[in-house]
Amino acid sequence: MNKQALLHKSDSLYSFATDKDAVELRLRAARGELTAVELIYGMKHKFCVERKSAAMSLAATDELFDYFSIRLKLSDKRLAYVFRLTDTAGEKYYYSEDGATEDYDFSLAYYNFFQLAYVNPNDVMPKVDWLSEAVVYQIFVDRFCRAELGGGASSIPAVDASYINMKWGEKPTPKSFAGGNLDGITQNLDYLCGLGVNTLYLTPIFTSVSNHKYDISDYYNVDSHFGGNDAFKRLVDGCRARGMRVILDAVFNHCSEDLAQFRDVREKGEKSKYHDWFVIRGDKPTKHSLNYEVFAECAYMPKWNTANPEVIEYLCGVGEYWIKEYGIDGWRLDVSDEVSHEFWRTFRKRIKALGSDKVLIGENWHDSRAYLMGDQFDSIMNYAFTKAELDFFVYGTLDARALCDRLNGLLMRNITQVNYMMLNLIDCHDTHRFFTLCGKNEGKLLSALAINMFMPGATMIYYGTEIPLEGGYDPDNRRCFMWGDHPFTDRVRELLRYKKSKALAVGDVAFHSDDGVFIIERKTDEQTVTLYVNNSDKKKTVRGIEIGACGYKITDKQYKK
Amino acid sequence: MNKQALLHKSDSLYSFATDKDAVELRLRAARGELTAVELIYGMKHKFCVERKSAAMSLAATDELFDYFSIRLKLSDKRLAYVFRLTDTAGEKYYYSEDGATEDYDFSLAYYNFFQLAYVNPNDVMPKVDWLSEAVVYQIFVDRFCRAELGGGASSIPAVDASYINMKWGEKPTPKSFAGGNLDGITQNLDYLCGLGVNTLYLTPIFTSVSNHKYDISDYYNVDSHFGGNDAFKRLVDGCRARGMRVILDAVFNHCSEDLAQFRDVREKGEKSKYHDWFVIRGDKPTKHSLNYEVFAECAYMPKWNTANPEVIEYLCGVGEYWIKEYGIDGWRLDVSDEVSHEFWRTFRKRIKALGSDKVLIGENWHDSRAYLMGDQFDSIMNYAFTKAELDFFVYGTLDARALCDRLNGLLMRNITQVNYMMLNLIDCHDTHRFFTLCGKNEGKLLSALAINMFMPGATMIYYGTEIPLEGGYDPDNRRCFMWGDHPFTDRVRELLRYKKSKALAVGDVAFHSDDGVFIIERKTDEQTVTLYVNNSDKKKTVRGIEIGACGYKITDKQYKK
Repeated sequence: MNKQALLHKSDSLYSFATDKDAVELRLRAARGELTAVELIYGMKHKFCVERKSAAMSLAATDELFDYFSIRLKLSDKRLAYVFRLTDTAGEKYYYSEDGATEDYDFSLAYYNFFQLAYVNPNDVMPKVDWLSEAVVYQIFVDRFCRAELGGGASSIPAVDASYINMKWGEKPTPKSFAGGNLDGITQNLDYLCGLGVNTLYLTPIFTSVSNHKYDISDYYNVDSHFGGNDAFKRLVDGCRARGMRVILDAVFNHCSEDLAQFRDVREKGEKSKYHDWFVIRGDKPTKHSLNYEVFAECAYMPKWNTANPEVIEYLCGVGEYWIKEYGIDGWRLDVSDEVSHEFWRTFRKRIKALGSDKVLIGENWHDSRAYLMGDQFDSIMNYAFTKAELDFFVYGTLDARALCDRLNGLLMRNITQVNYMMLNLIDCHDTHRFFTLCGKNEGKLLSALAINMFMPGATMIYYGTEIPLEGGYDPDNRRCFMWGDHPFTDRVRELLRYKKSKALAVGDVAFHSDDGVFIIERKTDEQTVTLYVNNSDKKKTVRGIEIGACGYKITDKQYKK
Repeated sequence: MNKQALLHKSDSLYSFATDKDAVELRLRAARGELTAVELIYGMKHKFCVERKSAAMSLAATDELFDYFSIRLKLSDKRLAYVFRLTDTAGEKYYYSEDGATEDYDFSLAYYNFFQLAYVNPNDVMPKVDWLSEAVVYQIFVDRFCRAELGGGASSIPAVDASYINMKWGEKPTPKSFAGGNLDGITQNLDYLCGLGVNTLYLTPIFTSVSNHKYDISDYYNVDSHFGGNDAFKRLVDGCRARGMRVILDAVFNHCSEDLAQFRDVREKGEKSKYHDWFVIRGDKPTKHSLNYEVFAECAYMPKWNTANPEVIEYLCGVGEYWIKEYGIDGWRLDVSDEVSHEFWRTFRKRIKALGSDKVLIGENWHDSRAYLMGDQFDSIMNYAFTKAELDFFVYGTLDARALCDRLNGLLMRNITQVNYMMLNLIDCHDTHRFFTLCGKNEGKLLSALAINMFMPGATMIYYGTEIPLEGGYDPDNRRCFMWGDHPFTDRVRELLRYKKSKALAVGDVAFHSDDGVFIIERKTDEQTVTLYVNNSDKKKTVRGIEIGACGYKITDKQYKK
């Protein structure tokens, strides 16, 4: 047996509570090597004398590993356990904290059993259910739609349009302003609703000199170009009337050099009471010497010192304000992996106190368990999933079988609740457009979206995907939405209808491949919805289902209870 | 290559900051399989175009794995990296979040490099330096020493002694009271100091009807049998005068059924404002139905509901009080793994606000990474180390070579700072006495203590080990200390002198075996202190050092700077 492949840890993503009296346990082993895994478990204080056992089942397989799992309802919340493994050669091992051994002395088990010492309800990571049902439409506000305001019958005041420096539909530059605004979104809520969208996620809307507004100079005011706070109120009201939710972009890693507090430090140096709000080496920050920390290498974006309690308090206040005053449904957390864990722990407490269904979604591109243990984020933007889709559809480094492996591996990076809150995406304002990367193949784009939608968690759609917009890297990925009739939109709308299936929200997930066709099954007791994706240039028929070249098919089976 | 053996995770115990601008990275691989590991690293935002590389070195080996490591000083706090592996066959692999691959596309690295996204100073786990130098003497107060108080010239009031129900030195029962008290300790501080002890850790001292006092009915008063709060003040003063520290036992998992709040619930049931302070199913808790959660199966020890914010506030208040009012140096946390993580996060903040050198040491018997990430405990009682010592000296399931492996494996369970704060022990009030388990072999006991002392972290000694006391399981492990001359004490005193070596506090650690002799080396630039342990019944000579049967030897080499 490949003993090095075995993995289990107490109180980890291999051993966690899913509810106050239910736990899920996982055991990892080399792929194909174990024929049976038995859980030997009992109440912690009586484990040496009183135990039960239960068979674990193969839950997932990736390139290298099999993952066995079991869910247990607990009558006592103090769980001790070891594993009993049987390999293909029929050899049997115990597996405890002391590793895989032929014998195991239960009288000394107190030293080396695995455990969930006690399931405390406040340590159980809650699942925010609406995220599993969410179709999240990401809007880069300057490029989505411009509402011409003021004049005529409109009660909405006019806004000076002199900042607009590009014609709608021109190729954008890093400095382009096309004039999209919040009322432009509000006017199109019926369109978005009809498309199947139930959640908006807006890139930053607060006061800023840039088109992207990731350099915020006033966290309490929506940029006047976007229509100000009143326009945002109108948008939120419009969403609420339609049962739609709104997520804003929390830029708490850095701000704008124009922020009042940073200006104060530039003037007064160490005498400013805000000097320690940023990370400055020396007295006054200067762009020339760049003696202060910034986002990436952008001197105009000074980094917040999120180790400073005053900064923590200030930014938590911002986070609370837009929920309390405008009723937003949560925050997407910009550059969240560069902000301190300690900050996020406080932020989560403050935000969740306003509603356990307010969500926190990190912009973490990497394996991020340290942020997803229940004390910080609900989930992250699932860029590892993006990469898997690219490897399958664009780079060709994964075939259908390997995609199953990859996706299973990703699910095994986090606990189940987190998986069902992931924000799955194929592209965004920070990547090339998927449509451009896949050679403008509409079938591939739809198939990629279909896989996205079948993943547990929220389905994110970058604005314009449905028409479909092209776009290379920033700023080309931020082109203007072109209003008008696009036949492709109907195909996206048709696809997104399936997101309403209960199985796609709460169903178990399983990946398969058959003759090069990639298959995802989502399953409840009452329904199985299955997606078949054919990424080849020839029509295929598997399991009696015909799938066109570069296309997908969905089947939906309902069972009587 | 055994790809399943490879392990690295971003922002984990394989990738952590040791200081605000220093990080330590570890990579795990199958034992003996890699001949070289190179770190390819750079600033996160420029990693695709600008990288450095550095060789990692083999830091530790356990039964199954080699652990390579490297420490880096950072000029930029945003670190991206992948590994370049060379195996014994000369094959080379890249290792990233996508696994071990022959090729690696740096242009797509942003999706799958490893990273320490940004080292925020408030996320760096600080090391409390004094713990690395501590010799911690654990006292079960009722059995250490009885000071006869009152009368004569003493200004200390007499205490009613009618509760004492055993003669000093008799075999204790679960209900025995021998009469040991705090002034008895105070009177012997010179003895303890002379022995080499610099820290006391007392089992619970607060008001309780039991001899062990783990069922506390008043967290704000020292039990009158122990001399009350005044006696504790005298003890702390005596310690302070000698530069000794004091740690108390924080029993925050459960309390006594006699606690006022629990009594209130017993009377008023759900109408009591304390009903939710405990975990009760139904109206009134009754012992008969045991409709409330308790420690183990002890009806007299109701479990605190540490998910209740009022309970969190109450117990944090207790934790603060004894630091603020009496100046204690920290808490040993009883049954800490059954108390909620959320509780400990708050508790840590409240306690560390009173002094970053106040310590929090969990009674966690198991691999406890989830508690040791910097937001909860400093360290735990190192029972896994206890088990290793038992396996080597008592059960014979580890030889010297296997002990090296086991101890290396234990060090790789946690980050370096935690290892240097571990509370290492060979026995305590909850285990058999080591001396009894090892067949009353004084050489083995001394050798086990020596290994204990050579481990990074604090050296714990259970009272009476130095005379040496015998004892089976509770209550036999809680016998009375027998005052008088014990030649063995000199040998313990002689051993503990070495704990003052700088190398034993801050030195790197390495384990070796040679001809069955177990060797630990602790090393700084200026000093190497080496322990040789011969666990056989024949004298051995290794590396020119002669070690008697069941004995140890220590060498100390000093270098000129």
